[in-house]
Amino acid sequence: MRIGILGTGMVGTALGSKLIQVGHEVKMGSRSANNEKAVKWAKESGPKASYGTFADAAAFGEMVFNCTAGTVSLAALAAAGGNNLKGKVLVDVANPLDFSKGMPPTLTVCNTDSLGEQIQRAFPNVRVVKALNTMNCAVMVEPSVVPGEHDAFVCGNDRQAKDQVTEVLRSFGWKWIIDLGDITAARGTEMLLPIWLRLMGHYQSPNFNFKIVR
Amino acid sequence: MRIGILGTGMVGTALGSKLIQVGHEVKMGSRSANNEKAVKWAKESGPKASYGTFADAAAFGEMVFNCTAGTVSLAALAAAGGNNLKGKVLVDVANPLDFSKGMPPTLTVCNTDSLGEQIQRAFPNVRVVKALNTMNCAVMVEPSVVPGEHDAFVCGNDRQAKDQVTEVLRSFGWKWIIDLGDITAARGTEMLLPIWLRLMGHYQSPNFNFKIVR
Repeated sequence: MRIGILGTGMVGTALGSKLIQVGHEVKMGSRSANNEKAVKWAKESGPKASYGTFADAAAFGEMVFNCTAGTVSLAALAAAGGNNLKGKVLVDVANPLDFSKGMPPTLTVCNTDSLGEQIQRAFPNVRVVKALNTMNCAVMVEPSVVPGEHDAFVCGNDRQAKDQVTEVLRSFGWKWIIDLGDITAARGTEMLLPIWLRLMGHYQSPNFNFKIVR
Repeated sequence: MRIGILGTGMVGTALGSKLIQVGHEVKMGSRSANNEKAVKWAKESGPKASYGTFADAAAFGEMVFNCTAGTVSLAALAAAGGNNLKGKVLVDVANPLDFSKGMPPTLTVCNTDSLGEQIQRAFPNVRVVKALNTMNCAVMVEPSVVPGEHDAFVCGNDRQAKDQVTEVLRSFGWKWIIDLGDITAARGTEMLLPIWLRLMGHYQSPNFNFKIVR
């Protein structure tokens, strides 16, 4: 599959590299056509990796991952272009964390709305699936970093889109994937961030994950 | 130990009964001195159980549990009286859930503040410990209702108070108790409610719990 990655940070590079590793072609997009980090990543990642603008990556991908910072995701997606995203599965990995007022960060949206919903409303023809935003990027792409059973969550309004994302997650090694329902469940997964950040401080490590025990 | 329970709902009666079972004396308090549910509970619970007003329960308890609905907790605690609570450990089990706008409920406070913090600020001489608010009351008092390993969280500004609450939790059967730090961590545990509610819908059962896997 051809996959577009929006964002050149740790999450974008981790996902981009993993997606190439499991056999996909990946174009990493950023605000500029020649972002230094994107160029470096593509160079290191071989012939299946390429780079370009947000719009280039969105046009390239059959599936697109939003790995931008949550505070700039809507702007990045606007730059990517609704026409380039139309009908496609958009995996929203971002969290609306605002670090501008010091630590700990707060959420720019929560409780009665979520970034996932904001994106779905702004791009009604895009099939948004919120996923992987509840764990560190090292865990996202290699769940065995955390030993034992633990969970990934998906939510979104389009069942087929969720099935496609679930398949990609399985190719990463995810065995336990919980479908929380429609995109409004993004409130719940984004609101996990405050306790996630606390736990990271408590354990002095981001290598943990949530498990729902029944 | 003498323990005051504020609230006569499912959480208050579950905790009251369990606390009696493990050997404590419990007074259940409500707005009126003769709340029907409190009278019934006390009658069924034997000689170690009694009832009265919020103020009666707060004055009685060496430790006090806030089991009122989050939307009325501050009013209930005001009725209980700062002098009756002064210096005591107050276990805040409440969640600030607002059901008035339909389902799913939203939080009346979150992100930059929490009910736990509001209570600690309103009663600076009380040693507030947020605990047990991240699970159903059947699980609170009998963790083995959910098989296997899963976690209870405590947070608060007073280490000794957290130690005392941890001891009570251990007497309920809790083995895995995570101290998240000061009372501002209540934001994180209260913000677990949206995903908790989703999961309850998903599993059609409240008998599950979170486990942090490392």
